[in-house]
Amino acid sequence: MNAEIIAVGSELLLGQIANTNAQFISEHLAALGIDVFFHTVCGDNEARMIDVIKNAEARADLLIFTGGLGPTKDDLTKETVAKVLGRKMVTDQEAMDSILNYFKVTGREMTENNKKQALVIEGSHVLPNHHGMAPGMIVDTKNHLYLLMPGVPSEMKPMFLDFAQRYLARRNEEHIQSRVLRFFGIGESQLETKIIDLIDAQSNPTIAPLAKESEVTLRLTAKHERSDQAEAMLDALEAKIDARVGQYLYGYDETSLPEVVFQLLCEKKKTIAFAESLTGGMAADWLAAFPGASSVLSGGIVCYTNHVKRHVLHVPEDVLQTDGAVSAICAKLLAESARKLCGSDFGISFTGVAGPDTSEGKAVGTVYIGLAYKNGANSYPFQFNGTRQKIRIQSAKTGYDIVRRYLNGLPILGQ
Amino acid sequence: MNAEIIAVGSELLLGQIANTNAQFISEHLAALGIDVFFHTVCGDNEARMIDVIKNAEARADLLIFTGGLGPTKDDLTKETVAKVLGRKMVTDQEAMDSILNYFKVTGREMTENNKKQALVIEGSHVLPNHHGMAPGMIVDTKNHLYLLMPGVPSEMKPMFLDFAQRYLARRNEEHIQSRVLRFFGIGESQLETKIIDLIDAQSNPTIAPLAKESEVTLRLTAKHERSDQAEAMLDALEAKIDARVGQYLYGYDETSLPEVVFQLLCEKKKTIAFAESLTGGMAADWLAAFPGASSVLSGGIVCYTNHVKRHVLHVPEDVLQTDGAVSAICAKLLAESARKLCGSDFGISFTGVAGPDTSEGKAVGTVYIGLAYKNGANSYPFQFNGTRQKIRIQSAKTGYDIVRRYLNGLPILGQ
Repeated sequence: MNAEIIAVGSELLLGQIANTNAQFISEHLAALGIDVFFHTVCGDNEARMIDVIKNAEARADLLIFTGGLGPTKDDLTKETVAKVLGRKMVTDQEAMDSILNYFKVTGREMTENNKKQALVIEGSHVLPNHHGMAPGMIVDTKNHLYLLMPGVPSEMKPMFLDFAQRYLARRNEEHIQSRVLRFFGIGESQLETKIIDLIDAQSNPTIAPLAKESEVTLRLTAKHERSDQAEAMLDALEAKIDARVGQYLYGYDETSLPEVVFQLLCEKKKTIAFAESLTGGMAADWLAAFPGASSVLSGGIVCYTNHVKRHVLHVPEDVLQTDGAVSAICAKLLAESARKLCGSDFGISFTGVAGPDTSEGKAVGTVYIGLAYKNGANSYPFQFNGTRQKIRIQSAKTGYDIVRRYLNGLPILGQ
Repeated sequence: MNAEIIAVGSELLLGQIANTNAQFISEHLAALGIDVFFHTVCGDNEARMIDVIKNAEARADLLIFTGGLGPTKDDLTKETVAKVLGRKMVTDQEAMDSILNYFKVTGREMTENNKKQALVIEGSHVLPNHHGMAPGMIVDTKNHLYLLMPGVPSEMKPMFLDFAQRYLARRNEEHIQSRVLRFFGIGESQLETKIIDLIDAQSNPTIAPLAKESEVTLRLTAKHERSDQAEAMLDALEAKIDARVGQYLYGYDETSLPEVVFQLLCEKKKTIAFAESLTGGMAADWLAAFPGASSVLSGGIVCYTNHVKRHVLHVPEDVLQTDGAVSAICAKLLAESARKLCGSDFGISFTGVAGPDTSEGKAVGTVYIGLAYKNGANSYPFQFNGTRQKIRIQSAKTGYDIVRRYLNGLPILGQ
């Protein structure tokens, strides 16, 4: 099966946004063993869209559309596909109910054009949208498969992962098992060097390294007519990799470092508190994002000014004067104080210079992370680089890795 | 003149990278008054590339190619365009000299295939590459204009800005001015309903609505041979829109709501502190992201548990027992207490039920936002819906909109 991904939306042709949906979908189709030969972007224009659909039908089995499912006049995708297929539009009651419910819950006034979002192509398999109002749909003719999804990434991605992907996998014979190993605290080239022989010898399974924001991932992909066999091939390869760089391997697939730490804290029934100068609430927010966070997140203090470090977290004046707010001792005190104030098992603190300007005569990227626990506390120095935001994110992630390593009894790496 | 942007490269079809080149070029073509009707991505495959070129010739005047100009076997773009045009490839001496010079300077040994990079399409206008080895080229037939550039953004962008853009500008008279209006607190369909007559009447300037996460934008685009006239047309249209929905209009182009509030606080020399239960540090983090944040962000408390609400923010036990943590009175007290603790001009608080489970018998999406100022405090009730993360983000944005409205003397909307 080969696919063409068709994005509809003038905002793409005006350069307001990049077509990241096509990248996301392509990456996942590759893992399913579906070849993507073309991406096409066209505007909210019926004649040009029809031209695009006919081109795509001539060269692809699977046509994936993103965008143009909304309530406004210039949302034309499903109507145009229906026209090309010679099918009627019908109201999907489930979609209509969830739209009515949305307006009932929010108490917002429902305008007539919202009903348009409940219209689907006759005979299509409707994909629910749990993050917005416009449902997706799959039309399966004997010659082609048409998949229509919303253009807003936060609606399209879960719809693809939860519904469309499974449907496509069933339609595709060859079993391709893919597994992403996620690493933190090791660079891409350093990781590659440690497993270069495995990479050079790869055929099936394959190993694809990818550098993400201050992380590295390895995508392992195995092909076999039996899925359990493919899984076994992945297990064997992972074991080899784990033996060499296991301490940096924190999780799998879409699992984030904060998610891993959240799970660890839940398992061990431990709570944590944050003292955030540099990261300004970012680190606590990452934990608060998980349902049930209150069982492990006690709270935190965003100690952005020395006033707050002094009066809320009781950092002694002389420490702030002599060592400064960006220092190992201050990081240690902040972590201890956050732990005490919030009554938690652990306290973690972040203080540093995010830039663009230096502070206290310390260089941009100078970071100290403190960790406090029942019988003491420690702090770890780092020197990061990049933009203000990159330094802040790297610091927060490093803090989570410190907690992960502490809870797993692994060595903690300061620089 | 209308254009099609054709990106060549399997890495795009595999989802390893997004087609940001198309976004960059589209944005600049819009400013030149050149319409972009299609983006196409195809792989390093001659037959499919020929198919793409013929399609594009049938529907566009200007064909812009990115990628496939390199030295390797799978770099086929210029050879394939030459084939379609029935032209020969010839060596460009200038390009050859700079390649030879590159290897001389770097002391690296030049492999034979690098000479391929000096080959250009016969009769083309060569665009120098000051950031790499592969030159770009423009072929101007009487029917079409073909622009070929490298795929590496750091080579393509300067080549476009320094050479291609000027060439295209000369070929095109018309000026296009574009302006994005950003709205918060009003839905896409509600906004469209209020200006439907303007949308129906649009021709020049045009109005393009776009729904972003819990926001809506309108892109206004005017064409005129004089840019100041185009600007005036945009001003006139914006004035009409402003008269109807001005209170929801918070900013322009890429400006975010937190950025607007950051600017307002800087102008008015005011500081703010956060008390975040529901949002867990997210709101403070958004402000901390800006360089110079310390001049307006005093700090905050992530009061995730009642322990922290009680012992750090001094919410009376009976409030937590009778009204609960998710209540108007608690929100008010949290905002006041954060303001006092951090010694700031304003205090803002967020408490609510992010879900997935209800809390204190209150429905998921129940949110109270408190605002404390010099002479008092107030709190505002909201009912949001969607995922846990959507509710948290919507709450944080709404908090920023409350501060924006307060600082601008606008009515504050609770639901």
